[in-house]
Amino acid sequence: MKVVDAGITKVKGVKGQGIHAGFKKEKLDFTIIYSEKLCNAAGVFTKNKAAAAPVLLDRKFISDGKAQAIVCNSGFANACTGKKGIEDAIYTAEYASRKLGIKKEDCLVFSTGKIGIPLPMEKMINAIDKTISLIDTSDEASKNVANAIMTTDLVSKEITVENEGYIISGIAKGSGMINPNMATMLCFIFTDAEVDTDILNDSLKSSVDKSFNRISVDGDTSTNDSVVILANGLSNVKINTENKVESFKSALVHVCIELAKKIARDGEGATKLIECECIGAKNQEDADKISKAVISSSLVKSAIFGEDPNWGRIMAAVGYSGAEMNLEKIDVFIGDLKIVKNGVDAGISKEESRKELQKDSVKITINMNLGDFSSKAWGCDLSYDYVKINAQYHT
Amino acid sequence: MKVVDAGITKVKGVKGQGIHAGFKKEKLDFTIIYSEKLCNAAGVFTKNKAAAAPVLLDRKFISDGKAQAIVCNSGFANACTGKKGIEDAIYTAEYASRKLGIKKEDCLVFSTGKIGIPLPMEKMINAIDKTISLIDTSDEASKNVANAIMTTDLVSKEITVENEGYIISGIAKGSGMINPNMATMLCFIFTDAEVDTDILNDSLKSSVDKSFNRISVDGDTSTNDSVVILANGLSNVKINTENKVESFKSALVHVCIELAKKIARDGEGATKLIECECIGAKNQEDADKISKAVISSSLVKSAIFGEDPNWGRIMAAVGYSGAEMNLEKIDVFIGDLKIVKNGVDAGISKEESRKELQKDSVKITINMNLGDFSSKAWGCDLSYDYVKINAQYHT
Repeated sequence: MKVVDAGITKVKGVKGQGIHAGFKKEKLDFTIIYSEKLCNAAGVFTKNKAAAAPVLLDRKFISDGKAQAIVCNSGFANACTGKKGIEDAIYTAEYASRKLGIKKEDCLVFSTGKIGIPLPMEKMINAIDKTISLIDTSDEASKNVANAIMTTDLVSKEITVENEGYIISGIAKGSGMINPNMATMLCFIFTDAEVDTDILNDSLKSSVDKSFNRISVDGDTSTNDSVVILANGLSNVKINTENKVESFKSALVHVCIELAKKIARDGEGATKLIECECIGAKNQEDADKISKAVISSSLVKSAIFGEDPNWGRIMAAVGYSGAEMNLEKIDVFIGDLKIVKNGVDAGISKEESRKELQKDSVKITINMNLGDFSSKAWGCDLSYDYVKINAQYHT
Repeated sequence: MKVVDAGITKVKGVKGQGIHAGFKKEKLDFTIIYSEKLCNAAGVFTKNKAAAAPVLLDRKFISDGKAQAIVCNSGFANACTGKKGIEDAIYTAEYASRKLGIKKEDCLVFSTGKIGIPLPMEKMINAIDKTISLIDTSDEASKNVANAIMTTDLVSKEITVENEGYIISGIAKGSGMINPNMATMLCFIFTDAEVDTDILNDSLKSSVDKSFNRISVDGDTSTNDSVVILANGLSNVKINTENKVESFKSALVHVCIELAKKIARDGEGATKLIECECIGAKNQEDADKISKAVISSSLVKSAIFGEDPNWGRIMAAVGYSGAEMNLEKIDVFIGDLKIVKNGVDAGISKEESRKELQKDSVKITINMNLGDFSSKAWGCDLSYDYVKINAQYHT
């Protein structure tokens, strides 16, 4: 597998475009991605019970394991919009699918932005017309697609890998669960490999568990979170032997982890990416709990923003994670420095450990010394700007 | 029951003192509270598995249902200090109990402050000697006691109630789980009512569930959290009939809720107290989950700091709380204003709803319209100062 410098249109038969359609004051805010050939498809959606209208619709549409196009606006989340919200989402899919000449159920719709405000449907119709007239396979189109799904994201998030003759390419957005009045983490992945829906579902679920489910910016679960993968088979590479399935899965995990890390690093107000790896845990669940608790702790996040090697906060988070532990066995590392040995201070000078915290990416390793299970999680520091971004009122 | 303007020494037979002993650079940092008569006692302690040495010791000491004195330092948490930490906690109890002429097991010890640094034991011994020579029942002694347990708290937290001929008086501290390198919520309650240990345990547990377990400042559970109640019986009022037990319980719940609210309002960097009441929930667990999710959400907290009536964030928190819900039945109020009706915008102008958010205390009510269960929770807004307090490095 190798990472290639290209966007989503590198996938055979996939084209797209992103435009400014007026959902936001400026910047690109609407995109369509379309596959020439009907795709096998799988999706993972938010567990939030206030799930947005497009999420409710997509869950139904994707249940037959098929999809061909993605239509996404940013600026309005179409969440908490009642029956009108559902009708608007259905109409969006109907209108776009008619114009694209595909089945309504194969057109997935996504929204991200302010909660509680109905979609401006006139803008939506114009956006669909205009975008379809512009879709192509150029690099610029790829870039526009990745940009058009951003809200308060500072950078676009994309990755493309080539593996055994096929391409997997994904784009994602997400910065806080909610940007100023805005919501959502979205990820769209295309591949030209030929993959059964069952394998797609299984691979996507396990990849999401190792990537997007292992990041946290602020602990708030959005109403609109969605990750979908569409496989059109146009590379003629069939993923049908155990060998090929494993290779496909690892390529997909790589794509998802890289996108997830990009989201964590671009968390609202973030100045640093934090990676926490728990090793030596008694079981997988414990390893998962520990790494997630550490990167989610407001106090650990604030300490890292302040470049303060305050390991007591890391130990406190391990302690309340709910995992089994023996305090006297725990070692904690920042970068390669062992700062806690057998649960107590290892005697490293603050100056030395602060140096590790001045880096762009901070790695915390916790060795429970109880077993063989490990887990990684990613987050970001908590800065003044997080509060600023989320306290300021924008209409 | 009436609230009286007095401190902990209002309880018959209880005296105390708080001094500056040098655990911190300045300010009072050491206290002893002592009951002339041996008390029935109950305690609730942190569930953090990295529990501090004094917590481990107190759990043992209080297991016989008896206690007579409280010894507490601020500045050092005596957490993650290994065997030395345990030995220091035991020696503190031994030395203080000898000086007070009581049994070692009846002397509860508490610490709050920096994690991972051994207690300076010479200071501890001097502190015990000096404080015992100064303990009395004056109002000033009460004030010093309440002040000496503070860390980054801006105000001391005490409440005294008179009920059917006896007094219940409590003091508490807590501002973040961890102040700059510091930890802990502590609460000490004394009463001169005569109460069986079983009733004490039961009353304390249910009071804590309705108060301290319903607040959150930053979601981080401390290594040192402790709430204890000591009842010396000197008022000669026996709490032994069902009637009296119920009355005692409601007085104790009042004391605990008032202290818990004081902690939430004085949360690190807080500018506002947030109270969230969930009503009409299907069951108690759901009501508890919903109110706690809303006051814990970083995004709700930031919005309230910014006085932004961003109800979408409240709905998102309700949605991910895990409680059962029917989106189309939910009503949300800020103060008396219904801002969400049947799950969608109720059409209140932003200007009107912002007025409610400009108040010192913000009340959010969520009616699930599914049943008869309700629950309250308290928190505070998330401000720049929270990040500042927790990012700055102090040694």
